[in-house]
Amino acid sequence: MSTSTVWPSATATSRLRPLESPQLQIVDGFWADRLRLNRERTIPHGLDQIRRRGALDNLGLAAGAQGDYQALADSAGFTFPFLDSDVYKWLEAVGWELGRAADSPLATAADEVIAIVAAAQRPDGYLNSYVQVVGGGTPHRDLAWGHEFYCVGHLIQAAVAWHRTVGDDRLLAVAVRAADRIDDEFGPTGRSGVDGHPGIEMALVELTRVTGDRRYLTLAARMLELRGHGLLGHGRFGAQYWQDHQPVRQAATVAGHAVRQLYLDCGAVDVAVELDDHDLLAAVQRRWHDLVRTRTYLTGGMGSRHRDEAFGDPYELPPDRAYAETCAAIASVMLAWRLLLATGDAGYADAIERAMYNGVLAGISLTGARFFYTNPLQLRTLRASDPPGHGERVPWFPCACCPPNLMRLLSSWQQYLATSDNAGVQMHQYATADIQADIAAGAVRLSVRTDYPWNGRVTVHIVQTPDQPWTLSLRVPQWCRSATLIGPGGAGPRAAGEGSVALSRHWQPGETVILDLDLPVRVTEPDPRIDAVRGCVAIERGPLVYCIESADVASDSPLEELRWDPERQPVAVARPDIGDAVVGVNVPVVPPGSTDSSPAATVAGAIPYFAWANRRVQGMRVWIPR
Amino acid sequence: MSTSTVWPSATATSRLRPLESPQLQIVDGFWADRLRLNRERTIPHGLDQIRRRGALDNLGLAAGAQGDYQALADSAGFTFPFLDSDVYKWLEAVGWELGRAADSPLATAADEVIAIVAAAQRPDGYLNSYVQVVGGGTPHRDLAWGHEFYCVGHLIQAAVAWHRTVGDDRLLAVAVRAADRIDDEFGPTGRSGVDGHPGIEMALVELTRVTGDRRYLTLAARMLELRGHGLLGHGRFGAQYWQDHQPVRQAATVAGHAVRQLYLDCGAVDVAVELDDHDLLAAVQRRWHDLVRTRTYLTGGMGSRHRDEAFGDPYELPPDRAYAETCAAIASVMLAWRLLLATGDAGYADAIERAMYNGVLAGISLTGARFFYTNPLQLRTLRASDPPGHGERVPWFPCACCPPNLMRLLSSWQQYLATSDNAGVQMHQYATADIQADIAAGAVRLSVRTDYPWNGRVTVHIVQTPDQPWTLSLRVPQWCRSATLIGPGGAGPRAAGEGSVALSRHWQPGETVILDLDLPVRVTEPDPRIDAVRGCVAIERGPLVYCIESADVASDSPLEELRWDPERQPVAVARPDIGDAVVGVNVPVVPPGSTDSSPAATVAGAIPYFAWANRRVQGMRVWIPR
Repeated sequence: MSTSTVWPSATATSRLRPLESPQLQIVDGFWADRLRLNRERTIPHGLDQIRRRGALDNLGLAAGAQGDYQALADSAGFTFPFLDSDVYKWLEAVGWELGRAADSPLATAADEVIAIVAAAQRPDGYLNSYVQVVGGGTPHRDLAWGHEFYCVGHLIQAAVAWHRTVGDDRLLAVAVRAADRIDDEFGPTGRSGVDGHPGIEMALVELTRVTGDRRYLTLAARMLELRGHGLLGHGRFGAQYWQDHQPVRQAATVAGHAVRQLYLDCGAVDVAVELDDHDLLAAVQRRWHDLVRTRTYLTGGMGSRHRDEAFGDPYELPPDRAYAETCAAIASVMLAWRLLLATGDAGYADAIERAMYNGVLAGISLTGARFFYTNPLQLRTLRASDPPGHGERVPWFPCACCPPNLMRLLSSWQQYLATSDNAGVQMHQYATADIQADIAAGAVRLSVRTDYPWNGRVTVHIVQTPDQPWTLSLRVPQWCRSATLIGPGGAGPRAAGEGSVALSRHWQPGETVILDLDLPVRVTEPDPRIDAVRGCVAIERGPLVYCIESADVASDSPLEELRWDPERQPVAVARPDIGDAVVGVNVPVVPPGSTDSSPAATVAGAIPYFAWANRRVQGMRVWIPR
Repeated sequence: MSTSTVWPSATATSRLRPLESPQLQIVDGFWADRLRLNRERTIPHGLDQIRRRGALDNLGLAAGAQGDYQALADSAGFTFPFLDSDVYKWLEAVGWELGRAADSPLATAADEVIAIVAAAQRPDGYLNSYVQVVGGGTPHRDLAWGHEFYCVGHLIQAAVAWHRTVGDDRLLAVAVRAADRIDDEFGPTGRSGVDGHPGIEMALVELTRVTGDRRYLTLAARMLELRGHGLLGHGRFGAQYWQDHQPVRQAATVAGHAVRQLYLDCGAVDVAVELDDHDLLAAVQRRWHDLVRTRTYLTGGMGSRHRDEAFGDPYELPPDRAYAETCAAIASVMLAWRLLLATGDAGYADAIERAMYNGVLAGISLTGARFFYTNPLQLRTLRASDPPGHGERVPWFPCACCPPNLMRLLSSWQQYLATSDNAGVQMHQYATADIQADIAAGAVRLSVRTDYPWNGRVTVHIVQTPDQPWTLSLRVPQWCRSATLIGPGGAGPRAAGEGSVALSRHWQPGETVILDLDLPVRVTEPDPRIDAVRGCVAIERGPLVYCIESADVASDSPLEELRWDPERQPVAVARPDIGDAVVGVNVPVVPPGSTDSSPAATVAGAIPYFAWANRRVQGMRVWIPR
């Protein structure tokens, strides 16, 4: 039984395969805390907000209830016709949660939501509350901005989660009818149309994987090929905004709206591995590598421009005006995961790690119920006359794509820890977890124990092993300059090289192998082509990017006047005020006005970037002027 | 007869007074060329574009013609209800031109336009083609976004120009009826309302100055006081976007949409000097000084953010994503001029000079018929997949505020050269010009000759003088570190101090005084608080900011890899390829990959920033990494 998001079919040309998610259990430590918070606090908060903001009631109106549609139109005439997707993403998160463990109140709440969704669907399969209630009822009149396919895509993803985890096909029945309605109109012999917001493509591939019906895969492939030929027009921002400027196979670089591009490329990888389409896969890989090299923040954030939530020029990575939408960081994890499965290249796991610990986690508060939409790497102490609360996390957004996206990613996060192939098991992310895998040689059970990311030691116990040789691969993160392997058996400490360590042997139950990742504080120089952070350094430790908040600098030293003191070393320190086990860094700085560091050996306290803005929000910066 | 824009009434508390514009004639040199281009090329091009884009036809529809309204709605639902203002700004430019010299074809073309405007006005005085033709006909239903007052403001400004220059009151009659219609509804005992886009306030003050009817001044003052109390709501961008977050007298800093703020403050100065309102004037001055110190580009550009065309945080001045709208630079000239008249502080003339030679002039091509809306200080050689032509000037814009704004400013530019007060004449800007002034002592005539800005020598001949002492003041620009005064009579060279030189004497006809401004190439360090250009220098000479374009660097040296070589000196050189008399600068750079400048003494050619993007557009940068 497949119980994971992204489940390539048996014939797919994926290099690695996901494990079934019940076989992956995060049991303690950094991620266990966050997953518990997501389940117990964030997801209930999400349903509360979805109710308050009208997203659930909108579907109720489509189902026949009376009331006013809540599309959050502002006085400039903007409306948000895509609020159904918030409901679907929340349902997807609940689906993964119920797969991890039963939860009666959550299941009961979801039952009500599912019933409303099912009731909202028209007899012809069409489902979009905006069009049905206030949009005149005629489907697909505004593919560019209407988000109708996009919403169905999220409906399908929710349905897939419920099918795979708890075998509940109520949503799947709705999703199949909705997809069939689209296929009837837009299938191979039908109308040519693509959505202004990609996303349905990857969902349709999953729907084929779940149902076995290849029509959906065919439709996804068709939508990919149709894009890039001007079907969407130029809109406000130009055809590149929705990746309609060049065919998906040909575009050399990412372009336009970051989330749109990343979701599109997720679908392209899914189609490519199902159809053994090397050209399509290569096109995505080419774009990805250019993206990581030229347009990715240190935090893994992507998409620097506010105006159109878009990728900027190469090396246009301003820290202050970084858009770095939480959803883009999430989408980068989704895409890197697909590319990791397709190719087996550990570099994609590095990208997942960087994005998760920094760009993604920064999007949610330590209390689990306040969010950031954009994730800048600098906030000035003195700011423009913005509305009150600017720079602070909020409980929800009028356009609320990010919070439920965080929920569904965190609910499925354990899936990203490890994979298998015929030869063995690959560990990509480190967490205290119990892992089972059925490989060709037989059943493997591993028990992983670690205080990662605070400590670099990862201990893997072999709990069960086939009586045949197999290979255990352990990723050595790209940031790690010194990794040591100890064991199994009496094997002494030895250096582990870059990329990943592959241990092929006839394993015995009870054996242990230790990967010791050295994680000193690192002082990172930016690429000299990034104009906006010239003359600065950043602090990193392990997978974590650090930042300095105003609260951790002396009151007579405005954040904007701090200068890095290269003569002294940064020092890792415990920061219990930020959280249990949290390691901060004391950063040597030159006091304002000083030209010499010796008179006053000043330090500023840096904390992990993901933890910023959980105290009173004043200034923050990742990049520190030298 | 007043023949100038901004003509404070006799009782106004202005420190300086404008000269009547026929008394100011630019006769040769840098500005004569640009004014001729504006008159002969840009303004006819403007009418052609206004016709093509439908702005004139829209008014024709309001006057009863048949056809489709052209509001340039895009598929995101954006419409532009303010295209009437393009027509009015064009008419204003023509008004100033006809005041400078008769032009029969231009006058004939304008006659047709004026007739259409007059015919479009409703019997009740209301005039707005958008509302009349497609907006349902009910005025003032959407003050936040409708731009109805804003358009009337521009109508008034055009009417004032025609009244003052050629005594033609056809537009004035229309403007008075339109203003009366607004006053009837929004006057002292009427509805409380302000426009989402300020601008009408300064126009209403001018209308009082022209008509003597103080109702308009009262209405302007009322609108200023009403703003800042939440009448407009939060819109998409928050109340600060339209300066409705704090009362005009209280806001300590500029905020929100840059052009809106600057137009608002123009009106505030106009009201303040007419009503002797020191507090109001002081509020504007306070904002201005903060703006110049913390939010102004080296080019005089203002408003760094694309998303809402807004001022950013203090020192948020990215060169690549500079919005620096052409209209904002123009508005800064309008505001600085008002503050100069109000206070006599030469620093405002410095600001006008910096903005005009850089931020404003960069907005129009050397051929006079292509424009920039935004004026970045950096364009990368390799760019995002933007629509073709990104970074290039275009003949017009869907939202075409900037081109006709340039036209009206250039048509009235001679007005900004000099002022008078009871004691004498003040020269603020240097151009080869003939100047008359009627001061208390009697009539003064000056003949100014200069090759400014290429050469720093300014020769002022006294052509006519009263037989009494008076004071000639000559501004010493803030950028000038060494100014020498020679004459009058046999007076030998002597240093001229900062600010301005005041020569009080009993002048004789035929006397000459020479101001010699030393203009070596300057290497400018940025304020260290501007994060985005840390570690860079800029090149300036006289009032001009320079930039390096890809066309002027060796083909094996990408612009992005150039580094300033501090060991060698920049050198001024003739650049006849850019234009007659143009002085460029050869900038010493370290070749890419080199760590030592000696092996290859490389230079990159810098040209005045205003002249960029007149060749094939590749990369450009003002700030050069050290």
